[in-house]
Amino acid sequence: MIRIVVEPSQIQGHECMLTPPQQHYLFRVMRVRPGQLVEALVSGARLYECKVEPDSQTLTIQNVDEVHVPIAITLAQALIKRDLFAQIVEKGTEAGISRFIPVVTERSIVRDVSPAKQQRWQIIAQEATEQSRQTRVPQIEPVTSFKALPTMPGHVKCVLHPEGPNILEWLLEERPHGSEWMLVAGPEGGLSDSEVAMLQEAQYVAVSLGPFIYRAENAGVIAAGILTAWASSRLSSVGDLF
Amino acid sequence: MIRIVVEPSQIQGHECMLTPPQQHYLFRVMRVRPGQLVEALVSGARLYECKVEPDSQTLTIQNVDEVHVPIAITLAQALIKRDLFAQIVEKGTEAGISRFIPVVTERSIVRDVSPAKQQRWQIIAQEATEQSRQTRVPQIEPVTSFKALPTMPGHVKCVLHPEGPNILEWLLEERPHGSEWMLVAGPEGGLSDSEVAMLQEAQYVAVSLGPFIYRAENAGVIAAGILTAWASSRLSSVGDLF
Repeated sequence: MIRIVVEPSQIQGHECMLTPPQQHYLFRVMRVRPGQLVEALVSGARLYECKVEPDSQTLTIQNVDEVHVPIAITLAQALIKRDLFAQIVEKGTEAGISRFIPVVTERSIVRDVSPAKQQRWQIIAQEATEQSRQTRVPQIEPVTSFKALPTMPGHVKCVLHPEGPNILEWLLEERPHGSEWMLVAGPEGGLSDSEVAMLQEAQYVAVSLGPFIYRAENAGVIAAGILTAWASSRLSSVGDLF
Repeated sequence: MIRIVVEPSQIQGHECMLTPPQQHYLFRVMRVRPGQLVEALVSGARLYECKVEPDSQTLTIQNVDEVHVPIAITLAQALIKRDLFAQIVEKGTEAGISRFIPVVTERSIVRDVSPAKQQRWQIIAQEATEQSRQTRVPQIEPVTSFKALPTMPGHVKCVLHPEGPNILEWLLEERPHGSEWMLVAGPEGGLSDSEVAMLQEAQYVAVSLGPFIYRAENAGVIAAGILTAWASSRLSSVGDLF
């Protein structure tokens, strides 16, 4: 079904009011017809199944679903070269990441991001949300210094590191509890030993993804995919919290 | 450490003979110096730690490692639009896929691949192997019809499908045994119901990656990352076979 993302204020009673760009998208681009069903998603909250009305300005709500997302993953990702951060935002959103923090680390080559690029990442996040049946449009935070990570809040915190224990063993043996997760992924050359040590002192657990070394733009996405598959399975104890 | 991929025939006694392109790469591009250590990988077999010799034509072998890869994953991936198959080859190689079969399915829009593109994918696979500490350069097979999949060999066969059980639950409950895995991933619009049924009749298990829908270029890679993390952990029973 075609899906659009709407603001809570667009939901009024049994109707969803469409903005002009949404009208353009639905009627010109997607060529929907009156009577057709589409989905309107309020990020982080509800998914509305709606009928297209002939006036082209409103949808009539038929059905409402609460969307169950067992954990919220923040990916603190070191800035990386080329436009690979955009790729991480796209694929990481599909894998269930709900917040991205671009981080400047010791070995980061890229150390700054233009406001235009930041804005583009936010649009990519929104598009990926719409495509992947999710309910929260991830937030892209401003560029942050590595030093801020140890004190950031989170129920469960992990850092990707090739020498850590296997992430699946850790999940199934420790059964970490809590809905707010922090996941840290390094830049091309990895985090420095002292950075990893700083995180470990701050209750971060170092975990690895298996025997292979992933490129910087792939590691955080794969890790998020594993966390999401685990959290949404009966193997996790996260569901107990909800 | 700098790594090159070599043919078995290049290993002669305690020496690794370099081809002219490898000499160019090591001495001109990477600017290695005599005495420096580099790695030479024989795909699927051994990793040699070698010392660079002043003659610029040979390396002296210092150390040999057998590389342990618990499972061999073949990804039968439906052809997809743009050059996204190349991205799957790159990221999937990192995630432990050892063979790629480009497949034409009912809903495939792309149905053919030029020899030049096929060759480029093979080069991408080789580069990703070198970067990710792996031992086997994945093989890119010729374009194959979906109809060939049901009879393809494999100890464990699965197909990605949003309505299947969670892949982690399946792995940990069924503990599938065997070293040769087949993994099927559909095109942009997914596999058709009859295609999924054909695979299920042929002992394929349908599995999902959690509650979200991944784009076609992301699903197979995430699934391979999960399989590799699982197979290389103490949770799997695959290690019993080796």
